[in-house]
Amino acid sequence: MESLYVTYHIQSSSSDIRARAEAVALEQSVELPRPAVRDPYVEEHIIGKIETIDALADGVFKVVIRFNPETTGYEPAQFLNVLFGNTSLQSDVLLVDIDLPSSLLAAFVGPQFGMAGLRALVGAETRPLTCSALKPMGLPLPQLAEFCRIFAVAGIDLIKDDHGLAEQSFAPFAERVRLCQEAIEAASQETGRRAVYVPNLLGTPNALRRQVDICRTLGVRCVMLEPMLVGLPAYYELIADGLGLPVLAHPAFAGALRMAPELLFGKLFRLFGSDAVIYPNYGGRFTYSKQVCADLAGNLRQPWGELRPAFPVPAGGMQVDRVDEMVQFYGKDTILLIGGSLYMAGDALMERSRTFAENARKVA
Amino acid sequence: MESLYVTYHIQSSSSDIRARAEAVALEQSVELPRPAVRDPYVEEHIIGKIETIDALADGVFKVVIRFNPETTGYEPAQFLNVLFGNTSLQSDVLLVDIDLPSSLLAAFVGPQFGMAGLRALVGAETRPLTCSALKPMGLPLPQLAEFCRIFAVAGIDLIKDDHGLAEQSFAPFAERVRLCQEAIEAASQETGRRAVYVPNLLGTPNALRRQVDICRTLGVRCVMLEPMLVGLPAYYELIADGLGLPVLAHPAFAGALRMAPELLFGKLFRLFGSDAVIYPNYGGRFTYSKQVCADLAGNLRQPWGELRPAFPVPAGGMQVDRVDEMVQFYGKDTILLIGGSLYMAGDALMERSRTFAENARKVA
Repeated sequence: MESLYVTYHIQSSSSDIRARAEAVALEQSVELPRPAVRDPYVEEHIIGKIETIDALADGVFKVVIRFNPETTGYEPAQFLNVLFGNTSLQSDVLLVDIDLPSSLLAAFVGPQFGMAGLRALVGAETRPLTCSALKPMGLPLPQLAEFCRIFAVAGIDLIKDDHGLAEQSFAPFAERVRLCQEAIEAASQETGRRAVYVPNLLGTPNALRRQVDICRTLGVRCVMLEPMLVGLPAYYELIADGLGLPVLAHPAFAGALRMAPELLFGKLFRLFGSDAVIYPNYGGRFTYSKQVCADLAGNLRQPWGELRPAFPVPAGGMQVDRVDEMVQFYGKDTILLIGGSLYMAGDALMERSRTFAENARKVA
Repeated sequence: MESLYVTYHIQSSSSDIRARAEAVALEQSVELPRPAVRDPYVEEHIIGKIETIDALADGVFKVVIRFNPETTGYEPAQFLNVLFGNTSLQSDVLLVDIDLPSSLLAAFVGPQFGMAGLRALVGAETRPLTCSALKPMGLPLPQLAEFCRIFAVAGIDLIKDDHGLAEQSFAPFAERVRLCQEAIEAASQETGRRAVYVPNLLGTPNALRRQVDICRTLGVRCVMLEPMLVGLPAYYELIADGLGLPVLAHPAFAGALRMAPELLFGKLFRLFGSDAVIYPNYGGRFTYSKQVCADLAGNLRQPWGELRPAFPVPAGGMQVDRVDEMVQFYGKDTILLIGGSLYMAGDALMERSRTFAENARKVA
């Protein structure tokens, strides 16, 4: 039978680790004390089994537990429940990695466009793509649309809403998307280059569907969502039910300290349909290490069953003068996202944006 | 103008704390460096403002930031985004508390039945309610239904699915709910007491709606959901759109180490419509302190705008001999949930369940 392997890091003493690992295996499957399980089928096929225990540094052990994939029901909510449902509430355990059998890998759609689809969308075959953000919330919509025009004329590929632009009184979705989409189409005609406006979809499942309808009507060609704010199952269903637009995933509300970022952003976000994943880059105002960022980007792009590769989008306090460093570190299959530091240019916004876009084009 | 006050605990030195607090206020509103904000309206009305900074112990500061409630769009996903979107990714900040203006409090439905509705459902006016769980997953459905019958005959009020029972090949939802609902109705006729079966709803938004339809057809009278697995906005919308059944909230996947449990379980789960909230009790196999548990239960039951009070449901390794202690600690407006320790009785399951139910009835 196929198995789902889940890797946890558990803090424990050497003498307690096997019992602690057994407890996690029980918690994540039958949620009963071992002696209370009396059915032989459940004992053999349902209870999680310890595969390996290896000591790491500082009283932490790497524990791999094997689960029956049938327990996940092959759908996203229960799949997450098996990975980390109750154990997420226990502070001595981190969820670190997963190894999926082909049945589970085939149960999820993964990216519907992937890196190749996004490259085709903006017409950039090999160079890094560029991305900036419309902000801050609270500006009059024509001003946001003007920023959209400037970024597009400057040559930036993907121009996304700030993730804080939702459905507020000062930024109603339909009007905002109409103005920004018009601005980008006008700019694209002016420059002869394909820039893409990426509105932020955010809300309850019904609100998301209304927003998708508006995007389709207005000719939007790519969207952004925050999987952890809308909830991974709602995110997944929107894509799997035929969204038909490439999706940038934004990490808001992910607080991934109990789950390894390279798993959450690199594997789960991809598995559930992200074509590109924004995450906190090393050396910005967030705290992931270089190694975490490299592994995360690696997970997004590596061969994985039949899933399309997805773009890494390192972000969070990036600056124009770090473009070369980013490309050296991540390679060309990367979307470079710079927001705040472009706005710091004030009246020179067009110029700094142009430098950003041209630096990325030079890499080609 | 009304304000939304959000309390964070921030690790910092005394000399850096103001700058760090300003950075959080910017991150959670405009997500721009301060000098890049050039619009006077945005400066005055959109940027979060530091209200107070107070030193706590060990280099931690309590910081209250004031936000314009308009930035939340008065809907759940963007509301969570304002509270903790990007800052959830920064390991030096905890989200600790919220103080909502009446406009925001009125924007969310809160519990639709609350403690009074659940008491009426099971016919228990003042005593603590009792609850147990059908488990483990993997058992034949007639065996789960037999446990349901035993618990009901024994006098337990609420008999819920294990949170791991989803839509698996070995536990198809419609069939499981039909058998368990039949078992509880037969038992209620036998005893003349109202026991309530509580199926677990879990999946994507569309799957949840299908499950609700099945519950309505079969006469189910109460349901359980995991808000953090299905996603808080999907959870909220299901209730706000007229679910019409009391809801037990289960804490799976909540991993609330970066958000104070008394906020997440005590306030946010209630705000978004939970009638009763299951959470890890002190002294079980999870690690919340007595103080956290007391505050959490207090938040669920205290007067809060027009919101109905919700039941606390302390759980996680509870045992029959702790009933008196639980009631002394939490009072009678509590649902006592015991699962695994009843199953440890093996063939004496009925007897131990009866003791549990009778101990709770004696408190009346």
